[in-house]
Amino acid sequence: MPSTKTKPDRRSLILGEAARLFREKGFGGSSMRELAERVGMEAASMYNHIRSKDEILDAICFEAGEKYNRQLEEARVQFAGDYPRMMEAIIAFHVAIIFEYRDAVSVLNNDWKYLKPERLTEFKKMRKEYEKNLAGIITEGIAAGAFKEVNISVALFTLLSSLRWVELWYKPGRGVSKDSLAKDISAILMNGIKA
Amino acid sequence: MPSTKTKPDRRSLILGEAARLFREKGFGGSSMRELAERVGMEAASMYNHIRSKDEILDAICFEAGEKYNRQLEEARVQFAGDYPRMMEAIIAFHVAIIFEYRDAVSVLNNDWKYLKPERLTEFKKMRKEYEKNLAGIITEGIAAGAFKEVNISVALFTLLSSLRWVELWYKPGRGVSKDSLAKDISAILMNGIKA
Repeated sequence: MPSTKTKPDRRSLILGEAARLFREKGFGGSSMRELAERVGMEAASMYNHIRSKDEILDAICFEAGEKYNRQLEEARVQFAGDYPRMMEAIIAFHVAIIFEYRDAVSVLNNDWKYLKPERLTEFKKMRKEYEKNLAGIITEGIAAGAFKEVNISVALFTLLSSLRWVELWYKPGRGVSKDSLAKDISAILMNGIKA
Repeated sequence: MPSTKTKPDRRSLILGEAARLFREKGFGGSSMRELAERVGMEAASMYNHIRSKDEILDAICFEAGEKYNRQLEEARVQFAGDYPRMMEAIIAFHVAIIFEYRDAVSVLNNDWKYLKPERLTEFKKMRKEYEKNLAGIITEGIAAGAFKEVNISVALFTLLSSLRWVELWYKPGRGVSKDSLAKDISAILMNGIKA
């Protein structure tokens, strides 16, 4: 009988390899058989840890999404009242998550639409909530006089898309460090490119 | 025999409807039969103006791409030496093209990958060239002391992605004007959000 309890490291290994496979071949183009080969397990024994491709996609999307939520909350607490530093911390963790969980972020951004209907609704809610919280920080920052009176939606989407390209552009070996990338993006968004 | 010369307005009508159809259903999900219905022509008579779905995609992608190239060149000439105004003009025409040719821009951004191989190479070259020219303007602006010493790639991709979301987000009826959107994006990228 399959054990219901899974060693976290084995499950993490499977999810990590799955994220890489999905990023390379897309969710639709990835098979559980190939995943089992990559993790070096018999398919039957892999099913002790994870039930289906859908469950894997679900775990990757929600675990990655929760990282963003957790970090946003941490930045909010750690830099309470100091909106510029809070925003810099937010930019920095976005870049850090991409550097550290590149495959999972790619799956989150590209394959979320293949989540099962009820989980898709949940996922969209989580994403909406994230945007709402980030917009809230911008709004508070403006009210506190720390940010200019910019249009909130424009600021929100400019910020999020400026971070989004990092996932599409960043490849290990480009010789750009996480910190310098975060610093450069922060510099542009916080102070603009005009000298 | 089909006439080889096509009235430009009829061809434009077909391309415009095709762009809308491709945006709604994707290139793969669009049929020439449905296009003919939408433009209100017999399929046979439509083929007098345009030979195939591939030719339509080709025309949409290259005509839209050339708009960007032409406008970049115009901004460069019109604001020669004044890099901040040149950059504001570039941001403004990006927004304007999206507002005026929303369907074509969506096809350009999403369906370019279905171009025929040799045209795909050509298209990528055109896009690379555009990025190179824009990067060149940033480089010159830094050298002229008009822009901060930012990392060129970071500035380039931050700029392009900040404009990219407009296509995904903008819907007629959001009550946002082209000019105010361009002004807000410019404000953030040129001067940052920090007060």
